Amino acid sequence: MPTQILLIDCPDETGLVHRVTGVLFRHGCNIVSNGEFVDREAGHFFMRTEFSGEEDAARLVADLRVILPASTTIRLADNVPRRIVVLATKEPHCLGDLLIRHEYGDLNCEILAVIGNHETLAPLVEKFGIRFHHLSHEGLPRDEHEAAVLETIGSYSPEYLVLAKYMRVLTPAFVAHYPRRIINIHHSFLPAFAGAAPYRQAYERGVKIIGATAHFVNLGLDTGPIIAQDVIAVDHSHSAADMARAGRDVEKTVLARALELVFEERIFLSGNRTIIFS
Amino acid sequence: MPTQILLIDCPDETGLVHRVTGVLFRHGCNIVSNGEFVDREAGHFFMRTEFSGEEDAARLVADLRVILPASTTIRLADNVPRRIVVLATKEPHCLGDLLIRHEYGDLNCEILAVIGNHETLAPLVEKFGIRFHHLSHEGLPRDEHEAAVLETIGSYSPEYLVLAKYMRVLTPAFVAHYPRRIINIHHSFLPAFAGAAPYRQAYERGVKIIGATAHFVNLGLDTGPIIAQDVIAVDHSHSAADMARAGRDVEKTVLARALELVFEERIFLSGNRTIIFS
Amino acid sequence: MPTQILLIDCPDETGLVHRVTGVLFRHGCNIVSNGEFVDREAGHFFMRTEFSGEEDAARLVADLRVILPASTTIRLADNVPRRIVVLATKEPHCLGDLLIRHEYGDLNCEILAVIGNHETLAPLVEKFGIRFHHLSHEGLPRDEHEAAVLETIGSYSPEYLVLAKYMRVLTPAFVAHYPRRIINIHHSFLPAFAGAAPYRQAYERGVKIIGATAHFVNLGLDTGPIIAQDVIAVDHSHSAADMARAGRDVEKTVLARALELVFEERIFLSGNRTIIFS
Amino acid sequence: MPTQILLIDCPDETGLVHRVTGVLFRHGCNIVSNGEFVDREAGHFFMRTEFSGEEDAARLVADLRVILPASTTIRLADNVPRRIVVLATKEPHCLGDLLIRHEYGDLNCEILAVIGNHETLAPLVEKFGIRFHHLSHEGLPRDEHEAAVLETIGSYSPEYLVLAKYMRVLTPAFVAHYPRRIINIHHSFLPAFAGAAPYRQAYERGVKIIGATAHFVNLGLDTGPIIAQDVIAVDHSHSAADMARAGRDVEKTVLARALELVFEERIFLSGNRTIIFS
Repeated sequence: MPTQILLIDCPDETGLVHRVTGVLFRHGCNIVSNGEFVDREAGHFFMRTEFSGEEDAARLVADLRVILPASTTIRLADNVPRRIVVLATKEPHCLGDLLIRHEYGDLNCEILAVIGNHETLAPLVEKFGIRFHHLSHEGLPRDEHEAAVLETIGSYSPEYLVLAKYMRVLTPAFVAHYPRRIINIHHSFLPAFAGAAPYRQAYERGVKIIGATAHFVNLGLDTGPIIAQDVIAVDHSHSAADMARAGRDVEKTVLARALELVFEERIFLSGNRTIIFS
Repeated sequence: MPTQILLIDCPDETGLVHRVTGVLFRHGCNIVSNGEFVDREAGHFFMRTEFSGEEDAARLVADLRVILPASTTIRLADNVPRRIVVLATKEPHCLGDLLIRHEYGDLNCEILAVIGNHETLAPLVEKFGIRFHHLSHEGLPRDEHEAAVLETIGSYSPEYLVLAKYMRVLTPAFVAHYPRRIINIHHSFLPAFAGAAPYRQAYERGVKIIGATAHFVNLGLDTGPIIAQDVIAVDHSHSAADMARAGRDVEKTVLARALELVFEERIFLSGNRTIIFS
Repeated sequence: MPTQILLIDCPDETGLVHRVTGVLFRHGCNIVSNGEFVDREAGHFFMRTEFSGEEDAARLVADLRVILPASTTIRLADNVPRRIVVLATKEPHCLGDLLIRHEYGDLNCEILAVIGNHETLAPLVEKFGIRFHHLSHEGLPRDEHEAAVLETIGSYSPEYLVLAKYMRVLTPAFVAHYPRRIINIHHSFLPAFAGAAPYRQAYERGVKIIGATAHFVNLGLDTGPIIAQDVIAVDHSHSAADMARAGRDVEKTVLARALELVFEERIFLSGNRTIIFS
Repeated sequence: MPTQILLIDCPDETGLVHRVTGVLFRHGCNIVSNGEFVDREAGHFFMRTEFSGEEDAARLVADLRVILPASTTIRLADNVPRRIVVLATKEPHCLGDLLIRHEYGDLNCEILAVIGNHETLAPLVEKFGIRFHHLSHEGLPRDEHEAAVLETIGSYSPEYLVLAKYMRVLTPAFVAHYPRRIINIHHSFLPAFAGAAPYRQAYERGVKIIGATAHFVNLGLDTGPIIAQDVIAVDHSHSAADMARAGRDVEKTVLARALELVFEERIFLSGNRTIIFS
C-alpha cells in the first residue's frame, strides 16, 4: 500500500502527540511508523509519521492546522522517488556507486541527468543510459559557469542536487536557488579539514582516523548541516594519496546513507543541526 | 523533578499511541520522552514513556487498563537506583570499572555486595567500602555452591545480578530464581565462540575482529537475549593472550552500556530478542 | 619503476632477516617495503619484501635458497594485474562495485569474464564490455553444472576466482581445482551464521551487530582462512530484510579490501589463519 | 628473559636493515620483534627492534654507530615500568581507569603521585595507596601555580607526565621542562574542537560522531603529535552533556592505549607526526 509521510514541527507543548495521532485516527490512517523528538534547548517539537490510508491530504492538513500552534510547519510528502540531478568532476567512485544503486532501485530517487565540469565521467554515466552534460568551467568567469550549470539543472526541475565529489565551490548566489536541497560529500570528518585537500591536511596533522561527511550545502564553506559521517583508522604508513584511496569507500557509503535519509524525508533542520528519524 | 517510566506492550492495533497519550494527558503528566515500536513479524506493540507529574500511580495504571487490550502488559517503574549484587571471579577490569562508575554515580544503581568464588578481588572491592563475600566453589558439589551463593544473594534482595566476568556456568535451577534479572558479559561477539575460552577459539579460527556481548542469562549457555555488543579489530600478530588483553576494554564498555539500558528500564523482550529504547 | 614481491616462509631461526636482506643487497635491489612476522606458536617465520632493480629473478631465488633452511618456501611475484574470473548470482552490489573499481584501475586485476547461474546480471556486466556467461544450474545435477562452470573458467586460465555473492555451495571436487585461489564474501561475521540465510539467522538471534567476511574457500562450508571482516551496528528495528540492505555496503567494502590484499600478494597462510602484511 | 628495545632513525639509504641486523647477530642477540618504516616524503628511516641476550649495551651502540650514518639517532631502552606523575582536575573516569590498570599491572608504569588542582579526586587516589597532592590554582598567578606544580613533580623525577583530564592549559615555559614527555587526553577528534568545551562545540556543530585524542603536549594548544584517536556515533538526541557522558569511555580507552604505546617505546616523532610500531 502506498504510504505518505507527515512532518510536523512546532514549539513544544503538552499533548501534541495525542492531538496529532487523534487527527490521524479520525481520518482512518494506519500508522506505519512514528517518531517524536523534543529539542529541550530550543523548546521545539518534531514529529515524523509514515502512514497509509488517507485519500484527502488537503483535509488532513487542514484538520491538523486546527489543533496545532499557529507557527507549526506541516509537510505531507508522498513516498515516491525524488527527482535529482548529480554534479561531479573526475572521480568515479561516488558517482559510480550512485549509478549502480539507482540502476537497481536501491535509492528512492530518479537521476535525471549528471553534469560534469570535466568530460571524464561521461562514458560511465552513459553506460547507464543517463544524460551527461559537460559544462566546462575553463576560461569562464565563475558566474557565467554557474549560470550555465543553473540553466541546465533548471531544465530538469529537480527536487535535489547531489554533489558527488564536485570539486568546485558553489557561490552563495548559486546555493540560494536550492536552499536545503543540495547535498555534498566532503572528504573529512567535518569540522576538521574543511576546504581544499583535506587528505593532505589530515596527513600533515598526523591524524589516526580519517572520515567523510555528507551535509546540506549552505552559504558557508563546508559549514552546512551535517547529515551523516563516518571514519576509518589510518596510521603513519598512509601517505596523503593512501588516505585518499582508503577514504573512497567511506565517502561513497556516507553519501549513499545521507541520500537515503533525505529521499525518505527523515530529516528536519533545527538551526544548523539535523534531527533525523532513522 | 522525579520521573516515572511507563512500559506498555500488547498486540498491535490502531490508535494505541493516541489512547495512551490521552490517559497521560488527562492525568496531567508531562511527557519527557516517548518511544514506540511495532514488531511487524510478531504484530506486537511496545511503548516506553518517561514522564513527570503523576501522583497516583495506581489510578493511572487502572485508567490505562481500561483503554488497552486485555492481554497488555503494563509496568510503571520509578526512576530510582536499582539494587544489585555483582558476581566476579579473578579479573578486575569489569568489576573495577563498575566500582568507579558506582562510586561517582554514573550508573543508576546501588551495589549492595560483591560475591567472588575466589578471594582475589576482595581488596579491590573493599577499597570502595563495599561488602565482599568469598564463596569458594572448591570441593563443593555445584548445587551446594549455588545454594550458598543464592542464600547470600537472597539476603540482599537485589533487583538484578550482574556477572562481571564470573567464570562459572550457572545451572538452570539457579537462573530460574532471577528470570531476566541476571546480566552477563561474554567475551565474544555471540553467537560466535559461546562457551569456554572464546579468545582461544577466536585465535584458532583466525578472525579479524573480536568482541564482547552483554546479555540476559537464560537457561542455555550464552544463548540469552542480547543487550549490547561491540567489537575491535585484531590481526595475525595477536596471540590469544593479546586478544584477551585487547578485549578487556570492549568487555567493560559493553557491560556498562548494557547496565545503563537495563537500569533505566529501556528494554523489552520479544521472544529472545531485545527491543531497546535508547 | 616496476617492483617485484618476494615472499619467504620457513621455520624460525636466528639471523634470517640479516641473511635475506644481504642477498637482496648484493643483487643491488632497492627495498621499497619490508615486513617480517614470527608466529611464536608455530615457530615459523614469514617475510614479504617489495623491491625494485633485480633483472635475474632465477639467480636471486637460487642465491636465497643457499642461505635459507631446506624447507623454506620462496615465491617471487611480479606486481602485475592478476587475471580473475568472477562468479555471481542475482545481487548486483558486490559485482557492480568490482566492475567500477576494475574500470578505473582501482584493483590490481583484470576481470576476464563473469559467470552467472542466473541471467540477471548480464546487462550490468555487458555495460562494462566484459563477457558474461549464463550457466544455469536448473535441471542439472550438481556435478554437471560444476563441470560446465569449470570448463568455462578453464578457458580463461585465471589466477583467482572471486565469488561475488555466488549463492551456490561449491563441492570439494570443484574447490580442489583452485586451492587457495577462490575468494568468497560471506554475509556474516564468521564463524557466526555460517551457511544459508545469515541475515535471517542474525535477526532470529537478535544480534546488535552484523557483518561480512571475505575468506579463501576451502573444503568446508564457510570455514576457510579469513582475509577481512567488518561489521555495522543494527538494532531491533531492523527486519532481516533491513539487515540485508544495511549489510550490502559492508559486503562490498570487505570483499574489495580482501581482493586488494590478495592481488598485491600480501597474504600467507599459517594453517587456517592468514598472515597479512598490509 | 628481559628484553631491550633498540630505536634507530636516520636518513634512508640502501642496506640499513641488513647492517643493523648484522650487528645484532654478531652480538648474539635474539630478535623478539622487528619493524622498519621509511617515510618516503621525508626520506627518513625508522627501526624498532625488541631483543634479548645482550649484556654490553654500550658496546652494542658503539658498534651500531660505526655502520650507521653520522646523523643517526640511536636509543636503547630497558623494557621496565616507566615512572610517571599524573595530573587531574575533577573528573574521575580517566584517572580511575589508570589507577585500576596500574593496580593490576596492566600498564608498563609506576604511578609515583597524582597532582590535582582540586581536592575532589584525593579520596579516589588514596584508596589505591598513592600520594595525592592538592595544588590549588585559586588566587595564584599562573606562573606561581605552575612553579608549585613543577616543584612537586620534580621531587619525583618522573619520565612522563600524564594529563588525565587536567583542565588547565600549560604554558610553553612549563611544557619546555618535559619535551615530548607530557601526554594529554583531549575530548574531541582533533583537530576538530580544540580548546575549551569540545562537547559543547560538537553539539553546536551538529556532528554525528564524537571522539577523543591522546597526544604529546607541545607549545601550541592541542596541536601536539597525535598518538591515538577513536570515535563513537552520536545523534541529535544527545545534548552536550549526553555527549560528554558518552565520550568518557572513549577518552579513557584512548588514553590507556596511548600510554601503552608510549611506555613500551613504540613511538618515533617525524616532525609533528608519530610513527608507531604497534
